[in-house]
Amino acid sequence: MTLKIGVIGTGAIGQEHIERLHNRLVGATVVAVNDINRKQAEAVAKSITPAARVFDSGQALITDPQVDAIVVTSWGPTHEEFVLASIAAGKPVFCEKPLATSAQACLNIVNAEVASGRHLVQVGFMRRYDRSYRLLKQQIDNGNLGAPLMVHCAHRNPSVPDVYAGDMAITDSFVHEIDVLRWLLDDDYVSAQVVLPRKTRHSRKDLDDPHMILLETKKGIRIDVEIFVNCPYGYDIQCQVVGEDGIGYLPEPMSVLLRKEAKLSHEILQDWKLRFIDSYDVELQEWIGSVKAGVVRGPTAWDGYFASATADACVVAKHSGGIVPIEIGNRPGFYDPQPKLSAA
Amino acid sequence: MTLKIGVIGTGAIGQEHIERLHNRLVGATVVAVNDINRKQAEAVAKSITPAARVFDSGQALITDPQVDAIVVTSWGPTHEEFVLASIAAGKPVFCEKPLATSAQACLNIVNAEVASGRHLVQVGFMRRYDRSYRLLKQQIDNGNLGAPLMVHCAHRNPSVPDVYAGDMAITDSFVHEIDVLRWLLDDDYVSAQVVLPRKTRHSRKDLDDPHMILLETKKGIRIDVEIFVNCPYGYDIQCQVVGEDGIGYLPEPMSVLLRKEAKLSHEILQDWKLRFIDSYDVELQEWIGSVKAGVVRGPTAWDGYFASATADACVVAKHSGGIVPIEIGNRPGFYDPQPKLSAA
Amino acid sequence: MTLKIGVIGTGAIGQEHIERLHNRLVGATVVAVNDINRKQAEAVAKSITPAARVFDSGQALITDPQVDAIVVTSWGPTHEEFVLASIAAGKPVFCEKPLATSAQACLNIVNAEVASGRHLVQVGFMRRYDRSYRLLKQQIDNGNLGAPLMVHCAHRNPSVPDVYAGDMAITDSFVHEIDVLRWLLDDDYVSAQVVLPRKTRHSRKDLDDPHMILLETKKGIRIDVEIFVNCPYGYDIQCQVVGEDGIGYLPEPMSVLLRKEAKLSHEILQDWKLRFIDSYDVELQEWIGSVKAGVVRGPTAWDGYFASATADACVVAKHSGGIVPIEIGNRPGFYDPQPKLSAA
Amino acid sequence: MTLKIGVIGTGAIGQEHIERLHNRLVGATVVAVNDINRKQAEAVAKSITPAARVFDSGQALITDPQVDAIVVTSWGPTHEEFVLASIAAGKPVFCEKPLATSAQACLNIVNAEVASGRHLVQVGFMRRYDRSYRLLKQQIDNGNLGAPLMVHCAHRNPSVPDVYAGDMAITDSFVHEIDVLRWLLDDDYVSAQVVLPRKTRHSRKDLDDPHMILLETKKGIRIDVEIFVNCPYGYDIQCQVVGEDGIGYLPEPMSVLLRKEAKLSHEILQDWKLRFIDSYDVELQEWIGSVKAGVVRGPTAWDGYFASATADACVVAKHSGGIVPIEIGNRPGFYDPQPKLSAA
Repeated sequence: MTLKIGVIGTGAIGQEHIERLHNRLVGATVVAVNDINRKQAEAVAKSITPAARVFDSGQALITDPQVDAIVVTSWGPTHEEFVLASIAAGKPVFCEKPLATSAQACLNIVNAEVASGRHLVQVGFMRRYDRSYRLLKQQIDNGNLGAPLMVHCAHRNPSVPDVYAGDMAITDSFVHEIDVLRWLLDDDYVSAQVVLPRKTRHSRKDLDDPHMILLETKKGIRIDVEIFVNCPYGYDIQCQVVGEDGIGYLPEPMSVLLRKEAKLSHEILQDWKLRFIDSYDVELQEWIGSVKAGVVRGPTAWDGYFASATADACVVAKHSGGIVPIEIGNRPGFYDPQPKLSAA
Repeated sequence: MTLKIGVIGTGAIGQEHIERLHNRLVGATVVAVNDINRKQAEAVAKSITPAARVFDSGQALITDPQVDAIVVTSWGPTHEEFVLASIAAGKPVFCEKPLATSAQACLNIVNAEVASGRHLVQVGFMRRYDRSYRLLKQQIDNGNLGAPLMVHCAHRNPSVPDVYAGDMAITDSFVHEIDVLRWLLDDDYVSAQVVLPRKTRHSRKDLDDPHMILLETKKGIRIDVEIFVNCPYGYDIQCQVVGEDGIGYLPEPMSVLLRKEAKLSHEILQDWKLRFIDSYDVELQEWIGSVKAGVVRGPTAWDGYFASATADACVVAKHSGGIVPIEIGNRPGFYDPQPKLSAA
Repeated sequence: MTLKIGVIGTGAIGQEHIERLHNRLVGATVVAVNDINRKQAEAVAKSITPAARVFDSGQALITDPQVDAIVVTSWGPTHEEFVLASIAAGKPVFCEKPLATSAQACLNIVNAEVASGRHLVQVGFMRRYDRSYRLLKQQIDNGNLGAPLMVHCAHRNPSVPDVYAGDMAITDSFVHEIDVLRWLLDDDYVSAQVVLPRKTRHSRKDLDDPHMILLETKKGIRIDVEIFVNCPYGYDIQCQVVGEDGIGYLPEPMSVLLRKEAKLSHEILQDWKLRFIDSYDVELQEWIGSVKAGVVRGPTAWDGYFASATADACVVAKHSGGIVPIEIGNRPGFYDPQPKLSAA
Repeated sequence: MTLKIGVIGTGAIGQEHIERLHNRLVGATVVAVNDINRKQAEAVAKSITPAARVFDSGQALITDPQVDAIVVTSWGPTHEEFVLASIAAGKPVFCEKPLATSAQACLNIVNAEVASGRHLVQVGFMRRYDRSYRLLKQQIDNGNLGAPLMVHCAHRNPSVPDVYAGDMAITDSFVHEIDVLRWLLDDDYVSAQVVLPRKTRHSRKDLDDPHMILLETKKGIRIDVEIFVNCPYGYDIQCQVVGEDGIGYLPEPMSVLLRKEAKLSHEILQDWKLRFIDSYDVELQEWIGSVKAGVVRGPTAWDGYFASATADACVVAKHSGGIVPIEIGNRPGFYDPQPKLSAA
């Protein structure tokens, strides 16, 4: 059985996902596309997946009987509408980050999904599918590190464009750590604090950079994350889990060790797209598999809501300078973890 | 267009390739299988690819009009026959190592392919598809190291079974370096020498271990390779290219750096299958693509012949203790490199 | 000219310093020793430095005209008395950590030294003499990292004895980071915060472990230090300086990289004494040199006072859970840095 | 007791040793100097060690009753004469490399020393005193690697001056490996082979570069050493001992790991003097100690002879292209290893 997919949003990430589904992944085909810019949708369909039909509206695409499942890669503010419509149609939906643009909107999706009684929503937190994070999680899960006590992280970009402003260090960058660390530790957050170190001269006048963000979990694990988006040396994601019995480090991306020009060196990536490029393939391939198997494996709507609410608390913490409690309420039983499947 | 593949040989590697073609790769389907043990072929087909037909003979499978291309994973001594039959049938054939069990048999295949006027044969040297070797080759090809002058390698296994005997350190282990280093350096060999160091106490009485093998290339590059198959610490492939301007090292497999039990450590693989597991997927996926595109990209019959003849020279060198010339004759123009396609 | 030294306190560290001064260092000789346990002092003198006279009191040793300079390695609570007496006698004094057992006592020493008008006191913060810290400081001082913005540190011990209790994670362990980071960054602290992560099961019931300590400096640099004294894997000191232009890591102690037993590993030290053993030699050798040259180079009484007052603030911060300002007052002009000498 | 030393030869290395003995080492003093250029000797004495007397001849210095021991740092061709004179005078002598400029001259010294019945001669092979080599030797000696089977080495210089010509890659560069590997493995050589790889474009027309040198030991250990003296990236000494149970690598010099300018890097030294600078201190300090203790610990005249004869065999091997036996005869019982002293 081939999964027939409709893609809403044919911008950059939409095109990449269509290309991926069409050429590299197994078990799915793109049968429908839609974009607010119909001409672009037509051009994309023509160049990548000519057999796909172009729809006038996301709603029409969602309800079309030829469409088995939906991928939402449209502009963030439209996510809530399309995900809710997919739930209403009883169809599995993969929604790129963010699930919605406010915690409340995310909660609306959670409530709709719970009310529907079916697990339909997966959020595009791709780091969970990255090989290096999975290797690190194995070390935690097999008990090799003992109980985690602290996690030291860094999220560094060489530079950011001018549209990167305000609290985006939290809502756009740190949100990846928010999700992946919950998954890594199988834990939730109870408080947040944001500290502003001395500002780098490489940052724009109107942009705080770097940030140090501190999280506390229910189990008492303390997390510190450096967010540094004008770190000239490159794109670099670090994660170090300090357990009772040992410490595990997130592997560096594979590269050739060189002896050259007075240095023994590894190259550091400059482009964040290269860092997680493989994980997008794994993410969508596993989503296809889980949709076909009718099981839940990826980040849920609840995870999307939790990330959004945590980011909100961090923004408050940044502006207050204080330690802000994160009070999200209990996870609905509906989202309890399913019995584990065999390892990926 | 889906490539319809027939697989001859449903033992361990055959089953893996069938599973791979059926479940993970794009653009091909297994429509036919054959094995000298028909029951096994039937069981394999039933459990993995139930729609495939089971053939009584490899010859029948090869000539069946429903079969577009052949994968040969039968016992080594049968390879020559099935590859020649595939050439005779004008069908692309992917043949696992070795191409044939003697240099003369390999040459028969070369001659048949040249006579056929079509590029049909690819040999299963999977290291060329390994990410770490490709990263190292990039460094050479982009000129980052300058002209290569020396290559220092090691090929280490934690242990070998009792069937591993005689000159298999050369014909079964070193043969991988023979092929991958030719490809890496874009060069041919002109002489070989084999040195026997002090023998490890971990080896069987009747097995020499380790070996040091020295090769000289046409360009004058000097290669030294340690083959050590009772190296208790693990399976470990090392390659260091010393160029005029710098040195590049084959990346280690990705693993979590640990601080634990008085050690700062990376795990070393114990099982060779894990080291190149991903490269099999890439190898067959690219083969499918090249067959469909009608272009030659992978290791050719000539490469299979060159590897076999070089291994023969190394065996002679081992038993004589001297420096043995490798006189293989010029590559037929038929095998001249094709214009490069865009990078993989 | 040989510097004639009197040593007060012939316990473990006293014996080591006597042995060091007698056998390994140049330009000094131990002419006098004293200990509250006279028999021990006699035994030590006899076995290491037989020509030294044994004094009944520290005071008598200090004022003896044959003694040029004093080394104080007695019990902490006696330090204030002996350092003040040395100042009164106008003699250079090297005092092991702590300078005194309260910030007020340290301040008494500062005031006495300032009043004396002569630089006489050096405190035994040996990390400033460690090769790895000096290499890291070079990278900061030569501008290679740009302006420091954040510092991420860890101070890990494999275990602690039962006498290690209460707030000693701060006063005995963290105090080393307090001094060495001020020196490294050439900066002072303005606030402290202490966070208690989930406690390791390897700690005693009555001992908090680990701690995360956060410091802010006058320049706005943010420092986070993990203090983890039941970290079973070993003694491990980490320091990572994040600058505007790059990041520098404290070098690991030199050790042999091994491939063995399925691991590619470096050994981690188990014993803190081995980590800084060489730095004691450098520290005392440079002190001898600076005393002879009449110049100030090592940690001053002011540094000892600053460390003590900072530790006090951290203890308050730990028990309050809040962010505690560090208000120490300005450094007396007397302690302004001297013009730099040539690099060590 | 202070050892009174006379230094013959006040050129660069002589001045360094005088400065070292005068300012940094314990237990010795320079009382006499001599140089063929008397003015230079006077200037050196005046600026570093003004109390030393300047002698008109090396012979007069050696026999002067005020001189306890001799350091020979004069021009190589004069070494034989001064070492023989020291033996004749019954005085300990430390002679810089080479012990003499021919194997026969070295053998003359061996014979004279044996005839004298006293151990008097130490040769300046400083690598035995390098911390990294000592750490590697510990791993071998404590059995951690099992019996050594192979050793892979590299000796790389960024460039060489015009006076570096002919076979100096063997006689000046490789000679260090010749000595240090014998010591590391506690073994002797039985054959040598020299291979000339493709020449680097960075070498002068009249200089072969690089070389690969292969040695076989009595125990059957196989050693391969790359000598590459126009290796533009820096001065780099590598040594990897492959044992039955594991592999140990010579530690790299300590340096700060940096993340900067798209690289995760360690600096590589450019100047060979910096690589072994500390080992000279250790070497002479231990020599002073062994002279005072009347025991033999450092490289002997026999070691100097063995190195010279092995280098000669390598030169023959280079020019013949063949495998050349090394037939040096048995070590005189006089040079049997002494019972071990406690570890350094």
